[in-house]
Amino acid sequence: MRVGGVPYRSIWVDEDGQGVQIVDQTKLPHAFERVTLRCVDDAVHAIASMQVRGAPLIGVTAAYGLCLQAARDPSDAALEAARARLHATRPTAVNLAWALDAMRGALRGLPPEERAAAAWKRAAALADEDAELCRAIGEQGARLLERALARRGGEGPLNVLTHCNAGWLATVDWGTALAPVYVAHERGLPLHVWVDETRPRNQGASLTAWELREHGVPHTVVADNAGGHLMQRGRVDLCITGSDRTTARGDVCNKIGTYLKALAAHDNGVPFYVALPYSTIDWAARDGVAEIPIEERPGREVSHVEGRGPGGEPVSVRVVPDGSPVANPAFDVTPARLVTALVTERGVCPATSEGLLGLYPERRSAG
Amino acid sequence: MRVGGVPYRSIWVDEDGQGVQIVDQTKLPHAFERVTLRCVDDAVHAIASMQVRGAPLIGVTAAYGLCLQAARDPSDAALEAARARLHATRPTAVNLAWALDAMRGALRGLPPEERAAAAWKRAAALADEDAELCRAIGEQGARLLERALARRGGEGPLNVLTHCNAGWLATVDWGTALAPVYVAHERGLPLHVWVDETRPRNQGASLTAWELREHGVPHTVVADNAGGHLMQRGRVDLCITGSDRTTARGDVCNKIGTYLKALAAHDNGVPFYVALPYSTIDWAARDGVAEIPIEERPGREVSHVEGRGPGGEPVSVRVVPDGSPVANPAFDVTPARLVTALVTERGVCPATSEGLLGLYPERRSAG
Repeated sequence: MRVGGVPYRSIWVDEDGQGVQIVDQTKLPHAFERVTLRCVDDAVHAIASMQVRGAPLIGVTAAYGLCLQAARDPSDAALEAARARLHATRPTAVNLAWALDAMRGALRGLPPEERAAAAWKRAAALADEDAELCRAIGEQGARLLERALARRGGEGPLNVLTHCNAGWLATVDWGTALAPVYVAHERGLPLHVWVDETRPRNQGASLTAWELREHGVPHTVVADNAGGHLMQRGRVDLCITGSDRTTARGDVCNKIGTYLKALAAHDNGVPFYVALPYSTIDWAARDGVAEIPIEERPGREVSHVEGRGPGGEPVSVRVVPDGSPVANPAFDVTPARLVTALVTERGVCPATSEGLLGLYPERRSAG
Repeated sequence: MRVGGVPYRSIWVDEDGQGVQIVDQTKLPHAFERVTLRCVDDAVHAIASMQVRGAPLIGVTAAYGLCLQAARDPSDAALEAARARLHATRPTAVNLAWALDAMRGALRGLPPEERAAAAWKRAAALADEDAELCRAIGEQGARLLERALARRGGEGPLNVLTHCNAGWLATVDWGTALAPVYVAHERGLPLHVWVDETRPRNQGASLTAWELREHGVPHTVVADNAGGHLMQRGRVDLCITGSDRTTARGDVCNKIGTYLKALAAHDNGVPFYVALPYSTIDWAARDGVAEIPIEERPGREVSHVEGRGPGGEPVSVRVVPDGSPVANPAFDVTPARLVTALVTERGVCPATSEGLLGLYPERRSAG
């Protein structure tokens, strides 16, 4: 996607082939800073400090971390130590372990002198695969947007509401929830995106708004409280969000507050779509509310807000009185009955067991 | 209500009878500063700068502003000029005009030398009436809380969720939505209040949390996004909010985001109560979504967050990227079908025309 008119991915190999570049997402939206990772320490730091975030991007960053190690010391011991350190950076990201396993599979059995080249090749393939997967989600979802515009008699702009950041910054390129928006925008569809601020970490205001602004997609930031009112007044044509975990029957665990928007969409007859790659489907889980444990994150994310001070410097301000307790559940579960359809790299399906099995028939035998 | 163990109202006359004291609400929750109003200029400034806010408190502050003028120059011309200035402070507060009219009625026809004493007397009566009205709402609502606790088999704490600030700081004492909480707490009911942060102005985090902390009511601040999840997990026994305007059939216009919580309460079988004095009922309006215009407030409230910086100083930080547009609708409408009951100074009634007319039979002939 574009930043200041220049196409970027969220991670790429340096021109000299010696380093890996990322966008320091902790500085967004107020500064666009590229950081070069030159060794596995840099990659560990980038993931742990959330310079990169989003499960797909974390996985690819870890894979490139192994490349940087293989270029310095491709011995079994060095690679295993690097793998263990990268694996320990974030507790819950499934893609992280998956990407590290894929790298191990590609290097296993190779003589040390061939490992660096093989690692760079495999990591690049992982990055390309992620970008293609997201592009495919974008193609599938863009059809829904085109149909919604047709329902408006072709009259733009089509108003899309999204929550949190499931954009290209969370993946290698395109994103998940935002991929249909980018594909439709590329095709000239007149679009406008309502961006939920997404308290407490403000990923909507700080990342989604920045992505859309840089890529030239019209958008407006609103408080998380505003979406119901906008839907009630007919100012939202459809909602689309990402998913952190999707159960086999279509319940969606996503950023806290997603459920409230799905309720409002249902109450106002607004379609509510969830875009996700196959990797977020948890085929073992059915009832999301009963079965998915919800991470409780540090209270400081609620009691304090990060922003840019009067002089442009980053400042953290306290908004809750000293001594008032704070709770910070990070995700909620949107029951499948509130989801109009799921959008994956393979197509669009109802949020039901049959719908998902229709797109992934190979899981029928697995069940 | 208590602050640091000492009982306060939100406005009171100085011991010397020459000035009027208020709490500077723009400094909350990080500092508790009392300000003395000594002339009508001070009262105008207090209302316009939102040192005082909340419709009932604005009305009483304006009334005391006229007292301060009458004490200096009780001539018709001086009082009329003061009235006009006070009236122009805030555009939409109905109580403001109502309180100023009440004061005019009390002073009209009196010789100038008797006006100051009459003004102080009438303003004090207005303040007492407001406190009594809120106390009555509290008595009515506390019964609902007692019954909800009984439904839990008497097992505390009873978990109450509220949105925005409809506490004693918005009135002279007790509040509206929080009055039942304070009355129940006074009676020893084991309570815990979930306090919605209430973006964009954070009245929950900055005022409700502070009130509850100072009065010793157990509470926890959460992001506005969290309430649906809490209800889904059975962690909320009932919701109670205030109302800025209530239609004759029971639709409730209140702080933006109220509608989302009412939807979540409905979806989870959690009672959703709205507490209001008779003065917020708009007998001429029926369909709140169709008939109530929603104020669009400055975008800066969304793009910036006010808080306390690392050194304890007040700081405003920008959270939205430069160049990203912002929208800031201030209220939304909760349809009557989502409201379990209305709680007024006269009792508890269904959110229907018949319910309201049952409490206010004198409006039947008016209709």
